[in-house]
Amino acid sequence: MDVIGHFINGELCTPESRTQPVYNPSTGEAVKQVLLASDTTVKAAISSAQAAYPAWRNTPVNKRAQVMFRFKALLEAHADTIIKLIGEEHGKISHDAAGELQRGIENVEFACAAPQMLKGEYSKGVGPGIDAWSEFQPLGVVAGITPFNFPAMVPLWMFPLAIACGNTFVLKPSERDPSCALYMAKLLQEAGLPDGVFNVVNGDKTAVDTLLTDQNVQAVSFVGSTSIAEYIYTTANANGKRCQALGGAKNHAIVMPDADLDNAVNQLLGAAFGSSGERCMALSVVVAVGNTVAEQLVEKLKVAMQDLRVGSYEHDTNHFGPLITQTHKAKVEDYITSAQQQGADIVVDGRNPQVPDYPNGFYVGATLIDKVTASMDSYQAEIFGPVMQVLRVETMQQAMDLIDEHEYGNGTCIFTRDGEAARYFSDHIQVGMVGINVPLPVPVAYHSFGGWKRSLFGDLHAYGPDGVKFYTKRKTITQRWPSTGVREGVSFAFPS
Amino acid sequence: MDVIGHFINGELCTPESRTQPVYNPSTGEAVKQVLLASDTTVKAAISSAQAAYPAWRNTPVNKRAQVMFRFKALLEAHADTIIKLIGEEHGKISHDAAGELQRGIENVEFACAAPQMLKGEYSKGVGPGIDAWSEFQPLGVVAGITPFNFPAMVPLWMFPLAIACGNTFVLKPSERDPSCALYMAKLLQEAGLPDGVFNVVNGDKTAVDTLLTDQNVQAVSFVGSTSIAEYIYTTANANGKRCQALGGAKNHAIVMPDADLDNAVNQLLGAAFGSSGERCMALSVVVAVGNTVAEQLVEKLKVAMQDLRVGSYEHDTNHFGPLITQTHKAKVEDYITSAQQQGADIVVDGRNPQVPDYPNGFYVGATLIDKVTASMDSYQAEIFGPVMQVLRVETMQQAMDLIDEHEYGNGTCIFTRDGEAARYFSDHIQVGMVGINVPLPVPVAYHSFGGWKRSLFGDLHAYGPDGVKFYTKRKTITQRWPSTGVREGVSFAFPS
Amino acid sequence: MDVIGHFINGELCTPESRTQPVYNPSTGEAVKQVLLASDTTVKAAISSAQAAYPAWRNTPVNKRAQVMFRFKALLEAHADTIIKLIGEEHGKISHDAAGELQRGIENVEFACAAPQMLKGEYSKGVGPGIDAWSEFQPLGVVAGITPFNFPAMVPLWMFPLAIACGNTFVLKPSERDPSCALYMAKLLQEAGLPDGVFNVVNGDKTAVDTLLTDQNVQAVSFVGSTSIAEYIYTTANANGKRCQALGGAKNHAIVMPDADLDNAVNQLLGAAFGSSGERCMALSVVVAVGNTVAEQLVEKLKVAMQDLRVGSYEHDTNHFGPLITQTHKAKVEDYITSAQQQGADIVVDGRNPQVPDYPNGFYVGATLIDKVTASMDSYQAEIFGPVMQVLRVETMQQAMDLIDEHEYGNGTCIFTRDGEAARYFSDHIQVGMVGINVPLPVPVAYHSFGGWKRSLFGDLHAYGPDGVKFYTKRKTITQRWPSTGVREGVSFAFPS
Amino acid sequence: MDVIGHFINGELCTPESRTQPVYNPSTGEAVKQVLLASDTTVKAAISSAQAAYPAWRNTPVNKRAQVMFRFKALLEAHADTIIKLIGEEHGKISHDAAGELQRGIENVEFACAAPQMLKGEYSKGVGPGIDAWSEFQPLGVVAGITPFNFPAMVPLWMFPLAIACGNTFVLKPSERDPSCALYMAKLLQEAGLPDGVFNVVNGDKTAVDTLLTDQNVQAVSFVGSTSIAEYIYTTANANGKRCQALGGAKNHAIVMPDADLDNAVNQLLGAAFGSSGERCMALSVVVAVGNTVAEQLVEKLKVAMQDLRVGSYEHDTNHFGPLITQTHKAKVEDYITSAQQQGADIVVDGRNPQVPDYPNGFYVGATLIDKVTASMDSYQAEIFGPVMQVLRVETMQQAMDLIDEHEYGNGTCIFTRDGEAARYFSDHIQVGMVGINVPLPVPVAYHSFGGWKRSLFGDLHAYGPDGVKFYTKRKTITQRWPSTGVREGVSFAFPS
Repeated sequence: MDVIGHFINGELCTPESRTQPVYNPSTGEAVKQVLLASDTTVKAAISSAQAAYPAWRNTPVNKRAQVMFRFKALLEAHADTIIKLIGEEHGKISHDAAGELQRGIENVEFACAAPQMLKGEYSKGVGPGIDAWSEFQPLGVVAGITPFNFPAMVPLWMFPLAIACGNTFVLKPSERDPSCALYMAKLLQEAGLPDGVFNVVNGDKTAVDTLLTDQNVQAVSFVGSTSIAEYIYTTANANGKRCQALGGAKNHAIVMPDADLDNAVNQLLGAAFGSSGERCMALSVVVAVGNTVAEQLVEKLKVAMQDLRVGSYEHDTNHFGPLITQTHKAKVEDYITSAQQQGADIVVDGRNPQVPDYPNGFYVGATLIDKVTASMDSYQAEIFGPVMQVLRVETMQQAMDLIDEHEYGNGTCIFTRDGEAARYFSDHIQVGMVGINVPLPVPVAYHSFGGWKRSLFGDLHAYGPDGVKFYTKRKTITQRWPSTGVREGVSFAFPS
Repeated sequence: MDVIGHFINGELCTPESRTQPVYNPSTGEAVKQVLLASDTTVKAAISSAQAAYPAWRNTPVNKRAQVMFRFKALLEAHADTIIKLIGEEHGKISHDAAGELQRGIENVEFACAAPQMLKGEYSKGVGPGIDAWSEFQPLGVVAGITPFNFPAMVPLWMFPLAIACGNTFVLKPSERDPSCALYMAKLLQEAGLPDGVFNVVNGDKTAVDTLLTDQNVQAVSFVGSTSIAEYIYTTANANGKRCQALGGAKNHAIVMPDADLDNAVNQLLGAAFGSSGERCMALSVVVAVGNTVAEQLVEKLKVAMQDLRVGSYEHDTNHFGPLITQTHKAKVEDYITSAQQQGADIVVDGRNPQVPDYPNGFYVGATLIDKVTASMDSYQAEIFGPVMQVLRVETMQQAMDLIDEHEYGNGTCIFTRDGEAARYFSDHIQVGMVGINVPLPVPVAYHSFGGWKRSLFGDLHAYGPDGVKFYTKRKTITQRWPSTGVREGVSFAFPS
Repeated sequence: MDVIGHFINGELCTPESRTQPVYNPSTGEAVKQVLLASDTTVKAAISSAQAAYPAWRNTPVNKRAQVMFRFKALLEAHADTIIKLIGEEHGKISHDAAGELQRGIENVEFACAAPQMLKGEYSKGVGPGIDAWSEFQPLGVVAGITPFNFPAMVPLWMFPLAIACGNTFVLKPSERDPSCALYMAKLLQEAGLPDGVFNVVNGDKTAVDTLLTDQNVQAVSFVGSTSIAEYIYTTANANGKRCQALGGAKNHAIVMPDADLDNAVNQLLGAAFGSSGERCMALSVVVAVGNTVAEQLVEKLKVAMQDLRVGSYEHDTNHFGPLITQTHKAKVEDYITSAQQQGADIVVDGRNPQVPDYPNGFYVGATLIDKVTASMDSYQAEIFGPVMQVLRVETMQQAMDLIDEHEYGNGTCIFTRDGEAARYFSDHIQVGMVGINVPLPVPVAYHSFGGWKRSLFGDLHAYGPDGVKFYTKRKTITQRWPSTGVREGVSFAFPS
Repeated sequence: MDVIGHFINGELCTPESRTQPVYNPSTGEAVKQVLLASDTTVKAAISSAQAAYPAWRNTPVNKRAQVMFRFKALLEAHADTIIKLIGEEHGKISHDAAGELQRGIENVEFACAAPQMLKGEYSKGVGPGIDAWSEFQPLGVVAGITPFNFPAMVPLWMFPLAIACGNTFVLKPSERDPSCALYMAKLLQEAGLPDGVFNVVNGDKTAVDTLLTDQNVQAVSFVGSTSIAEYIYTTANANGKRCQALGGAKNHAIVMPDADLDNAVNQLLGAAFGSSGERCMALSVVVAVGNTVAEQLVEKLKVAMQDLRVGSYEHDTNHFGPLITQTHKAKVEDYITSAQQQGADIVVDGRNPQVPDYPNGFYVGATLIDKVTASMDSYQAEIFGPVMQVLRVETMQQAMDLIDEHEYGNGTCIFTRDGEAARYFSDHIQVGMVGINVPLPVPVAYHSFGGWKRSLFGDLHAYGPDGVKFYTKRKTITQRWPSTGVREGVSFAFPS
């Protein structure tokens, strides 16, 4: 069985004895073993990054960007390999994995614009003969800790931009699907990145804690669940590090009476069940405004869901694949059961679906639950499975109140044709990413990604313009060249 | 004796029984009593701000900016009053207080540019028929906790911009010199600010802790010592708040062999002794490169310092005034003594100066200490008094190493005529604000203020462009208007 | 009778013998005489501006902005005087003149943000040890030539920003209503502007031609009719000057079947008849999509127009005032007659209205013409009077084609509730300023004003961010400090 | 003999009978024939671009950028071919041609950042419920007319950015070295650009005039001599087109007494003689401040120039190649002779050099002329050959006056170690591109290129941020969604 190690200072290495199996969720079989890095190994990766930092930081930004241009081309050239690695370890169908990779590559493209993005502001003559300007300097060694659900895209949110900004990087990908990160590390090396600038360590909490406490790590980017995000953020801050930690979500769509319902239904299916709902932007709650809308919507969804196929990543005609683990499958099914027990209607029941030839895969079928209420457990929690829940309200304001009262504020969407309703919604809703007839309002790579409330800990959002600010620190220089022979009077006043 | 209360919901109020004396440091006498807010009082201020928030947030930014235009004019019209309040409670000489106020007003001017600064980015056609844009929305109620040394300027770094961005505000100024904040609150009301948008509570740790824990406070800006800054930052973060906390400093000037020494000496005097050295940007350490420079520099400083007058704020011919408290005076003098005991040369000794007519004022005279070394207590600590220490090194690199090894990284300066030396220094030094022949490199209001290392906790610097980012949160909207009659295929792939 | 002179080098002067009467259009009487500057006088103004340039250019931008802060306050303090001057010489009712002034003041506010707006871009390390940055330097002496219809606002689009950017200025206002400009010149002086930085010359084509040909004038901003704009632009360019020349307009509103008609009617009345239609943003053409809409709209407009009062500027209850001259009144009425003769329906006829007590004023009443076609003279020309024309089409595309085929492309508007229609319209229409349910889409001062096609000659729009670019020129500096003793190899290759 | 045609609508075509020889300047032989497009052919190219425009304009910017990513990779993959084409038709040595291509590719990289660069500004709430934003929309068909001296780089300044911004393009390269443009057209097609978006026509004034007058061409970018630039600018403007026309130059270097002379000499050689001085940024005038500097400098230059080799493009050890034509060679030599006749010292004489094996090539050797004065013909004109002229002055101010009095203001440089001198120079000199110890201060691709005075006609500089503004036009949208059932009062006042 293959053993997956680390990538440190330009070399694959396998120093560890502690391992954990990596499953193919489509078959339910363990197919590889991944090493779990010790404190020593993680420190070696950090040291490698620290040693590579001075030279990389002094490399002109335009030269750094060249690596990203080549990396983009290599990712495209080797897309099939990456898609297969994602499918095998995560279970994502290839059309979905291709979309993930494409969005990731767009972040590499944004990193290619680093010469433009790193410009500071220059002020001539802030006082007589005095100029001032700002520079955005790299931080040093930065770390990324990424989740299982986007083994390519979320790392690509982080390291290309961090590296283009002049930092060196240690990535700890999810131990559930670690191969993708290692493969990208090799492509990056092939793209001309000097050894040590990018390192990958696989591992568990041991590795995380070393990254959070080692004094050479200057910043940590994290994406995962809210409870872990909060731990990461607090611990990183206490250790003097900059941190942005993205957590959980519960994304609602409001369907207004004037919405184009057929369009909404089509959009909702993909947004709720794509990637088995294992997305922090999955649109898992539909709030219908008015019973008429609710009845029509549930009926149309029910019909449309008959065609949805859950199955192995190996077949591109499947709509979505298995969940990540057997444990997670059980958890998702428990939430469905709890909704049923607490009074909701299970309109379409995806529990324990039949998937021929893959009897042991971690599958849950597309599930539709109607008449959910805000107090149900299935509503409060982020299920992270192919489960769409419908709530019914009388007014748009009630729908907005529901959203604002939820602890998460990642994404949301309104379906309407009305300009005024859309504008009021997007202005007032307490959510960081808003869609107007766009059910997955993931910002494009040249904007930034981030939720509000307990969906994000930190001031700055991920990637895009905020990413540049996160991966650099501001230095302000004020300059005056005294004229020869001119002696100036002492000033004891505060300069004005 | 006057009792100084709070300003809540547009009214001065004095609900408290707990008080503390406010001294005139020039005479050493207690001249007023300041109330120390209870938890209940602080919560009342927060409630007032919370109640005022929805209407203020919905006021168009251009209308909000109008208040700042009028506030600037009122600050200028009443500058004499403010300068006197600063002098009386802080001890600052009027020329220095005027400079402080002027720098503060420049932040009000920057807040007038809020319509420009709050612009988001708009992308037409991020996909077929899809647009995306960002908005920078206010946070809600934000708090400011400010130090004694700039009773006007540091609050003005915070609340004008926060308010112009659409937030409401609770300020807790230093209880040592609280009158200035209350006076500005009344001017702001006169400028047309709706009641409740700006509130002032006086108090001590009780008030601070309520601000740090109340769930309606969304963000906290702090300026003070590093130990408190760290507490503020950690506590605010743990309570789900955004925070920027500016701490201590130990600002070094490097004097190169090619520097214009007479100019350097003149600049250094003001930068070291202005405001008695009670500035986080005070330039308290001089690193002379080469013994020749050191000898000349110390001699010239010694001569120049003969003319420096310490005395009461009431006399504008004094160069600087008393320290803030009797306790602080003792602490500063202890540091001078410790340097002496640890082997440094006290070239000019300012301990226990004679200030006729003001026998009980908290005075320390300008002090010059030569041959200081990095291990001395007086070098490690931020003294916050009129004490300049000279270190001698052989090379510029040694000078830079000294700076980089210090725990603080607020400001620094190099004196040279050489373009290359200046560029190398400003590029590599691990300090957030760098001066080239500018000893107090406080960024102008349209840039941003912030140190590195343990001088600032948080990602974003104070005021200027970073201030706008700190006082707003990013919302990204993605919009698509489906065409009538067009039904689109279901997509289960991640959108690309 | 008062004689209106010039303002040169800080002084009012009356060197000329050639004059022209200034009328009060509300009474039809000549009330003042305005001097018409000779070539010599204009050259004196230019010389004054040229002499003042070096010192003003070297004044730090923050100090220059202070003048604008004070100027704003003075304009507000003396608003009544300015409104009266506008009313007397232009005929605008005070509520309308107040609106004009307010929009003008907003441009002064934007000029206060010059320290922010003048920032260049700084790139550290564009090559090894090489930095590059841009500066936006002032041009020198710039001229403004402004029309009669906004005697306060259009000059305020130009000179505050030009001056804040470091230029000096010569303004030639319209000779029909010259007093406002002179009054503002005195306020600017009172605000602290050094003499010579702002100069006003009154005059006719003689003055214009001197401004267009004098080699010390670096740039010209013009607002007026298209034929003159084209002359100004061509002549200024041929004389080596930067120029932006804003010309005529014919602004259409599309009313869609789903529009809120009562709201549209209300909006249209103000946009068509406000200021007697003497606005380059006047909404003078309504394109109704579908006969049903057309019938309802015309009926509602007809009813609403019964309440409109034309009359003297002295009565604030009037809705709009006289036209600027007797000649112009005749021209407007001729267009109404021509429409009638060419087959249109005159639904409401404003020709030769009865205005008690003002029998000789230059009045035309609100006029509504239905069933206008694209070939009519009244449609092709910019009437610049209180005349609203209705065209009827079957589809939105036909409405858009009409607009795109017109020679002007200044402003336009769509009335609809539908997000998709609004987005398609704003994306594709060949017009520079687009309103969605906003009939007068004049950009706010922190955006920029400009039409497309023959409504604007030049690359850069007026005021706002484009104004800053227009009033400055880019300088790019590339800097490298060679290390001591390091000799570098000769490179004959183009540097890369 | 090869016949070089056009590239229209994705196809090479040779419709013309009129031709002109293309020379290999290294051998002096005509090696190809280039077609000279008729009016009909140019109109066909414009029509092709016009037809391709709507679909290309509606292609999302991110998709347009993909073409540029691939184009960059193809230019790199085929660099050898391009370098050879440049060498053969222009005479540039391969190390120099490689540098040219590299700088050109950097403009393709900048075009890849179009998604970032095309962002407009979004203002929420400019009034109650009113939003406003700007869009930067493409112009339509734009034309580029480019000079012989950079057959790859100057076209690459223009079309990649124009196309990425959504425009379609017609390029007319120099008829002296046309092959490079055609080759790039084919690479662009291979990169996935739809047919018709990019077209190349070869030709002479006939082609130029069609581009300048055809009503479907919206904008023209030109680089060439000042007299032609002025004609292009005037004619394009008169035909309603946006234009930027870059003309001639006479770039001076000031050598200060404190300069590192050996470094300066090395820099000057490359900057004066690289590409035989046929660069608009060639540094052809050296102004020595003080006779001591002048004597040393001339002596050092004389010695260093002994090693310079002029010769065929085929040998990479040559430092520079032939001039472009026999006529131009004669003209350059005439300027040398005139300087001699007018009293200057010909220190090194490059007239009629011996180049073994290439007796008929158009060679002039490196020439150094000392004691040149401002009145000499050789000083006033742009020679565009390998001729360095030295002027001697007493003070830096005199050196600056010389520069400011010259009609051109393209580039300039100062050699000094002194921060104050460099800052004063870069602040005050009337030149658009300034080098501090950088003799060829060509801005990097993410800044913009442009001279002042008669070196550039137009408001906006070439490429970089200004290029984006040049290739787009601003549209400002103001939006308000009226609430259902809310009817608003009529407003006749100008909205404020």
